[in-house]
Amino acid sequence: MIRNMDELLKAASSGKSHTLAVACAQDPEVLRAVWTARKAGMAEAVLVGDEARIRALAEASQLSLDDFSIVHEPDETLACRKAVSLIRKGKADALMKGAVPTAVVMRAALDRSEGLRRGSLLSHVAFLELRKWERVLLLTDAALNIAPGLEEKKKILANAVRVAHGLGNPSPVVACLCAVEKLNPKMPATVDAVALTEECRQGKITGCQMFGPAALDNALFPAAARRKGMEGPLVGCADILLVPNIEAGNMLYKALAFVARAGAAGVVAGAQAPVILASRADSRETLMHSIALALVSMEANTTGGV
Amino acid sequence: MIRNMDELLKAASSGKSHTLAVACAQDPEVLRAVWTARKAGMAEAVLVGDEARIRALAEASQLSLDDFSIVHEPDETLACRKAVSLIRKGKADALMKGAVPTAVVMRAALDRSEGLRRGSLLSHVAFLELRKWERVLLLTDAALNIAPGLEEKKKILANAVRVAHGLGNPSPVVACLCAVEKLNPKMPATVDAVALTEECRQGKITGCQMFGPAALDNALFPAAARRKGMEGPLVGCADILLVPNIEAGNMLYKALAFVARAGAAGVVAGAQAPVILASRADSRETLMHSIALALVSMEANTTGGV
Repeated sequence: MIRNMDELLKAASSGKSHTLAVACAQDPEVLRAVWTARKAGMAEAVLVGDEARIRALAEASQLSLDDFSIVHEPDETLACRKAVSLIRKGKADALMKGAVPTAVVMRAALDRSEGLRRGSLLSHVAFLELRKWERVLLLTDAALNIAPGLEEKKKILANAVRVAHGLGNPSPVVACLCAVEKLNPKMPATVDAVALTEECRQGKITGCQMFGPAALDNALFPAAARRKGMEGPLVGCADILLVPNIEAGNMLYKALAFVARAGAAGVVAGAQAPVILASRADSRETLMHSIALALVSMEANTTGGV
Repeated sequence: MIRNMDELLKAASSGKSHTLAVACAQDPEVLRAVWTARKAGMAEAVLVGDEARIRALAEASQLSLDDFSIVHEPDETLACRKAVSLIRKGKADALMKGAVPTAVVMRAALDRSEGLRRGSLLSHVAFLELRKWERVLLLTDAALNIAPGLEEKKKILANAVRVAHGLGNPSPVVACLCAVEKLNPKMPATVDAVALTEECRQGKITGCQMFGPAALDNALFPAAARRKGMEGPLVGCADILLVPNIEAGNMLYKALAFVARAGAAGVVAGAQAPVILASRADSRETLMHSIALALVSMEANTTGGV
């Protein structure tokens, strides 16, 4: 089971060889990340985009592209489609966003006939390393689904559980995060949390264990949970934080990554292949970690998963 | 202007003398906090509750109650009403929750004829000290209002602005927090953020400056804001974080207070007197800091405010 960022990077380097399809690779940070990932033995990459700009950026950063395939496609929409097509043809295993808006690359990934859908919902899964507490967390969904209903939350959860399995955790503990620990009919998040926890108890949601409603403190710290009268072996021991809306997820992710300085990575799960959405807000490390997360999360995808 | 927790405590000790009305004071941590606050010259206190239990708890903690008034009232609902009544009669200046559920003390505070309403909405204002960045933040509303609409957000904001004025910041910078930096009609939080920012620009919202929609990173860090193409002197310099829903606020508060280890305090604003809601989740320090915040926030309340 992967318990920190170093283990994630090591697992990504020691697994079987994968290939990234980079959409609009003309981005200096993305080029540096795929170059570093290749050097670390994590993955090969096909660079789709404006070849002249890719070569110029690589030269400016003193990165040799000798070991990379380049597919010249200066149009960003077409570049995204070609990168997706490489995955559909089995020539690449993960999609990585370069110098292109998220909406454009996601449109190509979500295309009903030529995209990477496989029936399930796409959702974002963040991986966070709280070094002080020597633990890692998955957090979902901080980036894609705005205000998921109960059925959407189940799909979001299934995607995160599958990533946890890929990380070697066969039965992750899920905390259904809310603002409070108790059912409050005026707070729909608590109503959904009770329903999800009950379905998990009944065996209708599988591959994980669950508790909730839980507030962040009692999701993370057993002593805090017991102070609030919460019982059982799971409270305070969350491996996966399921948040009720994108604002809560995004602020929580950013508070942990940028203020608490947690190590961070992110991947879009639920498609035929993982999607790495680099953000200008993310650090260089987060980009590398996200490649590793995508590669390692595929371990469960390829073996069937939930 | 108060820039850290020490300055908050100092301001609370050096202002004019105030009195706390403690509802159901039979709580060891609350007794310790009011005892310490008195010793620090912050405030006197009237302890309303079960006198025998109050005296037994004080003795067990070796706290002398010689300088405190005690009003014996073992019934928790009546104790809350009596504490509120002390404020209405001018015998106390702030209400503090002891060993009683929040709902019970808030019911007494919100009573239409005998409570502390003054027409505005009650809302929670958290004070957070990010020591590493040597800055303090107000965060609202992490605890009371579940899913405020635009008009409610204005009242929540006005309460927080009044607290900021009490802290000596005459024109706090407000970030309207969302999950993203741009208007997205599918995300109501961004629609409200645009409306609030525009109303502030037009002078319809006064006493503060504002920017948004903003995500947490670009609310807190100017460099992060500029990486996202945000311009102007306010971006990254938030004094007040206005969150769109209670889940986002609560998780952000707890991530900062319990994971990033920010110094924390909280007060309910918008009533005739500040209300201190001690939580079992809060540390002993947070309880003391919350008393200080309540006392200092009164400076603006008594002089009119926004």
